[in-house]
Amino acid sequence: MSGKKGSCNNKVEAEGSSNGGLLLSCKAWAMSVWEFGRDEPNRVIFSLKVGLAVLLVSLLILIRAPYETFGTNIIWSILTVAIMFEYTVGSTFNKGFNRALGSLLAGVLAIVAAQLALCADRVLEPIIIGISIFIVGTVTSFMKLWPSLVPYEYGFRVILFTYCLIIVSGYRMGNPIRTAMDRLYSIAIGGLVAVLVNVMVCPIWAGELLHRELVKGFDSVADSLEECVKKYVEDDGLDHPEFSKTVMDEFPDEPAYRRCRTTLNSSAKLDSLAQSAKWEPPHGRFKHFFYPWSEYVKVGAVLRYCAYEVMALHGVLHSEIQAPYNLRVMFRAEIEEATGQAAELVRRLGKDIGDMNRTLKASLLKRVHASTERLQVAIDMHSFLLTSSYDRPTSAAKTDGDTDANPSPPSETYHEMMRKTSKRLYSWPSREVDAYEEEAAVGNLLVPRMRALESTAALSLATFTSLLIEFVARLGHLVDAVEELSSMAKFKSEVEL
Amino acid sequence: MSGKKGSCNNKVEAEGSSNGGLLLSCKAWAMSVWEFGRDEPNRVIFSLKVGLAVLLVSLLILIRAPYETFGTNIIWSILTVAIMFEYTVGSTFNKGFNRALGSLLAGVLAIVAAQLALCADRVLEPIIIGISIFIVGTVTSFMKLWPSLVPYEYGFRVILFTYCLIIVSGYRMGNPIRTAMDRLYSIAIGGLVAVLVNVMVCPIWAGELLHRELVKGFDSVADSLEECVKKYVEDDGLDHPEFSKTVMDEFPDEPAYRRCRTTLNSSAKLDSLAQSAKWEPPHGRFKHFFYPWSEYVKVGAVLRYCAYEVMALHGVLHSEIQAPYNLRVMFRAEIEEATGQAAELVRRLGKDIGDMNRTLKASLLKRVHASTERLQVAIDMHSFLLTSSYDRPTSAAKTDGDTDANPSPPSETYHEMMRKTSKRLYSWPSREVDAYEEEAAVGNLLVPRMRALESTAALSLATFTSLLIEFVARLGHLVDAVEELSSMAKFKSEVEL
Repeated sequence: MSGKKGSCNNKVEAEGSSNGGLLLSCKAWAMSVWEFGRDEPNRVIFSLKVGLAVLLVSLLILIRAPYETFGTNIIWSILTVAIMFEYTVGSTFNKGFNRALGSLLAGVLAIVAAQLALCADRVLEPIIIGISIFIVGTVTSFMKLWPSLVPYEYGFRVILFTYCLIIVSGYRMGNPIRTAMDRLYSIAIGGLVAVLVNVMVCPIWAGELLHRELVKGFDSVADSLEECVKKYVEDDGLDHPEFSKTVMDEFPDEPAYRRCRTTLNSSAKLDSLAQSAKWEPPHGRFKHFFYPWSEYVKVGAVLRYCAYEVMALHGVLHSEIQAPYNLRVMFRAEIEEATGQAAELVRRLGKDIGDMNRTLKASLLKRVHASTERLQVAIDMHSFLLTSSYDRPTSAAKTDGDTDANPSPPSETYHEMMRKTSKRLYSWPSREVDAYEEEAAVGNLLVPRMRALESTAALSLATFTSLLIEFVARLGHLVDAVEELSSMAKFKSEVEL
Repeated sequence: MSGKKGSCNNKVEAEGSSNGGLLLSCKAWAMSVWEFGRDEPNRVIFSLKVGLAVLLVSLLILIRAPYETFGTNIIWSILTVAIMFEYTVGSTFNKGFNRALGSLLAGVLAIVAAQLALCADRVLEPIIIGISIFIVGTVTSFMKLWPSLVPYEYGFRVILFTYCLIIVSGYRMGNPIRTAMDRLYSIAIGGLVAVLVNVMVCPIWAGELLHRELVKGFDSVADSLEECVKKYVEDDGLDHPEFSKTVMDEFPDEPAYRRCRTTLNSSAKLDSLAQSAKWEPPHGRFKHFFYPWSEYVKVGAVLRYCAYEVMALHGVLHSEIQAPYNLRVMFRAEIEEATGQAAELVRRLGKDIGDMNRTLKASLLKRVHASTERLQVAIDMHSFLLTSSYDRPTSAAKTDGDTDANPSPPSETYHEMMRKTSKRLYSWPSREVDAYEEEAAVGNLLVPRMRALESTAALSLATFTSLLIEFVARLGHLVDAVEELSSMAKFKSEVEL
């Protein structure tokens, strides 16, 4: 199809290139809008629901009967719908609660203040009203900055403007109680319409989103672990783009890594979804009351702890000091096996949460630990390769039967390779400082420095593997956390296959 | 003072304990409110400013003249102030822009639709209005989900409700243009009051907050690096609280670590502050137009990259597999020196940004690199200690003059210590799996596993030091990024002392 579009474009270009370009960019734009909606159909559903809700509430005014009953105050119901309608059911409930409580409090406050002002004489009245407005404005603004009240920020705004509106229009139009009641009614109507449309028409549940978000987190951690390790064992260290550029472009060739970093930054999203989900009644797969939504946040925290290890692995992958390629290849089989097992366990945990199953992970965990141990043994057997040559044996032949799949390179190659990469290694620390370094007595510093770097470069592999091992060690806690969630959320038990 | 309060409380308790408790908790509450305000006086200033703004705008209605000119529509200015007034000048401008453009667009749309509806006959009119409301509701809701339009979410809400209000009340009250214009005027008045109060009375600039936030980030990275390393070299590994508990309690005994994690999660905050700061005119210390606020976000990103290394170091500190205490003590001097230098450089960078100075960091960077090299040399000299005993020399006496401040422990102690910690090491992986492990043939697995763990435990020190070295390597990029910011923001140059 793209080929056809291309040829079509060529023809158009002959006639009028700017016109064709516009048409094409319009097409591209329409395509991306279509993709955006298809990616997540809830977006389209949400938009249509908002349209429906404002339409319904506008009908109250377009049709004569309700308009005559409520008068102009009915326009407040439109405002309420437009402001209250949120993406998920839970956050709509939450915002509705803020709105209702805020309006109620403001109404009560306003009536009290208005009665007080009425008792005073005609000159004092506006002064009392003015002072009360100043006090309400100051106090609500201060309170909404208080950390534990931040989620109710909207409620405080509602209190402020509702209070001002009621008391001021009450003063001008007389009868503040009547004004307050009419406005509360129409806000209630607007709120009711918003809630009904949100719950009745294809509801988008925050709980469901939270559930899916957590499962996605597991997958992205597993993916990025595999991606990172794959790059590490395959990378020959020759075509590294410049680091600072990579930081800014956010590693364009590593999609899984970026998703994993999204997982790391998702704590706020999980929190707010859990906050919204608590407002929702039992629905869909989440059938019982007091469903442990906060447990999802906890599992997310432990998962993030595993993800920090992946970030550290990724840091070693892009570090300035790299282990020689040969050395990495030597432990490739063990590293890949351990990684594969660990990623499988993480995916399995995610899938079990996704399916709301409860299986025993012991045998999987055991297998992960067994392959990690094999990696440890391999590192242990060849640990002399990781350190410098004070007492390095002359022949670096392997003595272990476990890992003879990779023939060990003769030590000549290793040294040759070391010499090759040493130029790159020497470019560390960084350019400007190298310039100053020249002043120093180079002669007696050069040798220990080179060797120190050589050894550190090899130790980089040790770093990578111990981070991997630590990742596996943390998986135990992840299994525990998932187990706790499963029992609290009453996932159905299944016998392990 | 607290003693006096206590004795006072005792007396009260004799009379009526519940009354005293209430009084005390009221006192505590008032104290914490006071502390909260004193911590950041801007909070109090902001609250008073909101009070002032709503008071000013209410005066428009309380005083007879403006009320008679604008009629009831003037209440919209109150709503505008309450909704538009934000913490910083920049975000108020931003929200005001959203509000103004949204209202304007909605007004134009409503007038067009109303004229269209007027052309149709009396029956069709409400139908056209209803359909237009549905379309506007759907389209604005869909657009505000589009990633690049998310910052303008509020603008789309404004379009939606302003459109509905104008067209519906125009339909009911006739003359939509008059309604629209009156409302736009009163919104403009409200917006003007909000902006004037925000800018004229003790303005809180987003740019200033961003500047301070970034400097705070540097300090917290330096602090938490030092804290983490200090704990690592001092920790004897005996009183570790359970890991999963610690994750949940968020490491209560490590305040700097928590601040550093806040730095990691601050990307959204920096982004939104930079977004707001772009709306602000030159002010205070930031005197020229097009101040490079986005450069702050970039420096923040590089700083976060350094902070990831600190997180990884922290991960090793709390890892399940720990290097023996003796080994850590052996390299203590070098580790502490390198850390101290690195932390000083980071602090110095932060201070230079804070003071808007531009100094050469070369000599500091050189010193950091020199001490890091000493650490590398030390590790290199004693790397045989990090690997298992295939070819370990029988006497582990040090051969290096650089580090003889710490007498090296005889190898007996080392092995004894290993045996002591081996119980703890053996508790890894985790309890449940150990239970299953018993089925396996323990005899022939035990020895290699133990040795593997022993070696891995020692390699944990290598991991810690290479992460530290990598942190230092990344500092070069941080220096570069700060240098770039300094030149773009035209910080004043100073000769290095």
